[in-house]
Amino acid sequence: MKQKRFFLPEDQIPTQWYNIQADMPNKPLPMLDPVTRQPVTLDQLSQIFCTECSKQELNMTDRWIDIPEEVREMYTYYRSTPLVRAYGLEKALGTPAHIYFKNESVSPVGSHKLNSALAQAYYCKKEGITNVTTETGAGQWGTALSYAARVFGMEAAVYQVKISYEQKPYRRSMMQVWGAQVTPSPSMSTRAGKDILTKNPNHQGSLGTAISEAVELARTTPEKCRYTLGSTMSHVSLHQTVIGLEAEKQFEMAGEYPDEVIACFGGGSNFSGIAFPFMRHVFSGEKKTRFIACEPASCPKLTRGVFTYDFGDEVGYTPLIPMFTLGHDFMPSNIHAGGLRYHGAGGVVSQLCKDGFMEGMDINQLEAFEAAVLFAKSEGIIPAPESSHAIAAVVRRAQECKESGEEKVLLFNLTGHGLMDMSAYDQYLRGNLINYSISDKEIADFTEKLGKL
Amino acid sequence: MKQKRFFLPEDQIPTQWYNIQADMPNKPLPMLDPVTRQPVTLDQLSQIFCTECSKQELNMTDRWIDIPEEVREMYTYYRSTPLVRAYGLEKALGTPAHIYFKNESVSPVGSHKLNSALAQAYYCKKEGITNVTTETGAGQWGTALSYAARVFGMEAAVYQVKISYEQKPYRRSMMQVWGAQVTPSPSMSTRAGKDILTKNPNHQGSLGTAISEAVELARTTPEKCRYTLGSTMSHVSLHQTVIGLEAEKQFEMAGEYPDEVIACFGGGSNFSGIAFPFMRHVFSGEKKTRFIACEPASCPKLTRGVFTYDFGDEVGYTPLIPMFTLGHDFMPSNIHAGGLRYHGAGGVVSQLCKDGFMEGMDINQLEAFEAAVLFAKSEGIIPAPESSHAIAAVVRRAQECKESGEEKVLLFNLTGHGLMDMSAYDQYLRGNLINYSISDKEIADFTEKLGKL
Repeated sequence: MKQKRFFLPEDQIPTQWYNIQADMPNKPLPMLDPVTRQPVTLDQLSQIFCTECSKQELNMTDRWIDIPEEVREMYTYYRSTPLVRAYGLEKALGTPAHIYFKNESVSPVGSHKLNSALAQAYYCKKEGITNVTTETGAGQWGTALSYAARVFGMEAAVYQVKISYEQKPYRRSMMQVWGAQVTPSPSMSTRAGKDILTKNPNHQGSLGTAISEAVELARTTPEKCRYTLGSTMSHVSLHQTVIGLEAEKQFEMAGEYPDEVIACFGGGSNFSGIAFPFMRHVFSGEKKTRFIACEPASCPKLTRGVFTYDFGDEVGYTPLIPMFTLGHDFMPSNIHAGGLRYHGAGGVVSQLCKDGFMEGMDINQLEAFEAAVLFAKSEGIIPAPESSHAIAAVVRRAQECKESGEEKVLLFNLTGHGLMDMSAYDQYLRGNLINYSISDKEIADFTEKLGKL
Repeated sequence: MKQKRFFLPEDQIPTQWYNIQADMPNKPLPMLDPVTRQPVTLDQLSQIFCTECSKQELNMTDRWIDIPEEVREMYTYYRSTPLVRAYGLEKALGTPAHIYFKNESVSPVGSHKLNSALAQAYYCKKEGITNVTTETGAGQWGTALSYAARVFGMEAAVYQVKISYEQKPYRRSMMQVWGAQVTPSPSMSTRAGKDILTKNPNHQGSLGTAISEAVELARTTPEKCRYTLGSTMSHVSLHQTVIGLEAEKQFEMAGEYPDEVIACFGGGSNFSGIAFPFMRHVFSGEKKTRFIACEPASCPKLTRGVFTYDFGDEVGYTPLIPMFTLGHDFMPSNIHAGGLRYHGAGGVVSQLCKDGFMEGMDINQLEAFEAAVLFAKSEGIIPAPESSHAIAAVVRRAQECKESGEEKVLLFNLTGHGLMDMSAYDQYLRGNLINYSISDKEIADFTEKLGKL
């Protein structure tokens, strides 16, 4: 019987995160203050985020950052997550490729998001902050922050996009079980929310709106509250590197090494988490690993966006970020992979993409669900719609290996389970899901008004 | 950092199940044919169940039964499940007790049910059967059988209680992802269903009705189809002993041994699975472990039922089983722990209860949910309403240890996660759940018409 799952002993769970900013051949361009066009300072960042996360965001020199003991302690409740050899999927595809996945869906909240939520909540607590706030759409990040806040005895205020609040009550209930205050956004509790509702009382909410409300809450109660973010920023990517660092050790146990690392791509944090630890050996010339970021064909910032300075949010509260973007007012199609419906890529991954260390691959919604059902049937696990984009890419690559006869070792990140997304599967099985296409003209309409770098 | 989770290497996953029937001081009384009152024969059982399961059901001599290689292969997709030291819960309770749980919620289908579904589907396949059928209420068992059938390339027909089919669409979708045919019961596809619908076109369904439909399907297509069952029968308990056998080895790794083994109780299969391997050392006189079966206060067959011959289903299709029962026409209250809403206990556990090797403990719905939320907050995992009955008992016992100062080692079975039950949590958090009480008079009304043993 061949071994399928590789776990690390608890004392081998990484003690440090990997800060890729120290090793990048070209550092990311600085974030800019939108008014002065000067690089944002630690002071400015610390008004929104906690100080330690702000420092990590700007840290270009320290390759390894210690994981606080308290965070490692909480990691051991679910880490190491297993590295799994997907024999079932290999058999179903008849491929000579060796397929592995890192199963982040086993975390208490059902996704990789907890890796950073625990770190952010811990640092806030340590700095005397008692309240954290954030926005959430489908709810993966909001769920993770709610649990992390509970762990460290803090209050969490989550602004959830109103239409998700109503359509995905299960995720809302999860947040409430852990004691979070969940508010449908736009709400009357902030000025931003009031302004929006005054103009349009039936506004259904958007991530941009919810970010505005959460940031406003943090800014207006700076003595006790900070804002937290689930992706895009480099400190979030930093915390996620525990995934790839574990995988590296687990591959040693399996006696293999990945030729290709594949992950879905929203803002970039799960991709960064699994890819960056392997990418450092490409920087050093030791390895020639290929890195593939899988984005929805209907939200193709890496494959069809422009590289320029743009806002991270819809209304322009954030600094200007050097990113591959479709424009901060781009409205993604209503695909079920809510976590991938984001107009831009983080600054670090954008630079790495520009420099050719990674590549984008676009996946249609139906291809993602087809791959998801194949995976569920062959490996048993029902994947999140987001993760299914990575699975679809793996299926493509495994089929190419079948044609070429190559025994490539493919690694992908199973970011989460799809148990909260069964209504999407139901629609897929009934034939009620569609692909969304986007024309060059539509993309140009959003991007041509952006400056070029 | 203290170790929290104990996994077995794949080559230490048990190769045999433990058949407690070989060791019981008093064997269970035989099941009887309701017409002839004679013990049911292998031939009779094999008309409904596959032959191998029927043999296991009647096997009173072989202590160890080999787990087929193909089933073990599938077990390695999720086994060993972790044995977890619940430091978070201990801290929240301030108890000196050492609390451990076996986390069966990590299986692909989210519960322990898969341990037997894989075995039953495999044996059917081996005997040339191409179709399996069963009933399901909330859907844990139906989900497990759907996945197991898919694994072995068989067709599954699941009759789901109509009101659950409509109220729990997520579980239905899970079954459909794995390719099962799910029919709301009562349906027009069987004679039993037609009869019921003719009398009452608005019948909302019940487990009894759904069993009748599934058994009828198996009986009317004997050349290709067999019925499968998720609890109660001793062959199902047998397959579940992989839980306790793993736990026994994992306790060696932890350097401890349980003083008390605690599990929720519907028909008895998860309780049997975790308890029987430890109980064999009580039979032999080596250990004095206490075994606690936690049942809903509103369905108290162990604590307030009678020990007699009764039917396993509502309409009387099954053999007569020697059981603790509230009467086969007992209608349990509408608690959210759907898997515990069953009128009787299996023959083996009933005999063990009668002989004093185990005891029942009744838990109210609100106490179960209170314990569930405490567990979610302190260990991160949102438990199934069924499992929460065991958690509530653990909380009681841990608090008693706090008062007495005893460092008891408590083990419970976390049978499943509650991610499909978030609407129940939502109702609980809003204060909309109630306890159901049942009077001695009500119990007598159901039980007095039963014969006595």
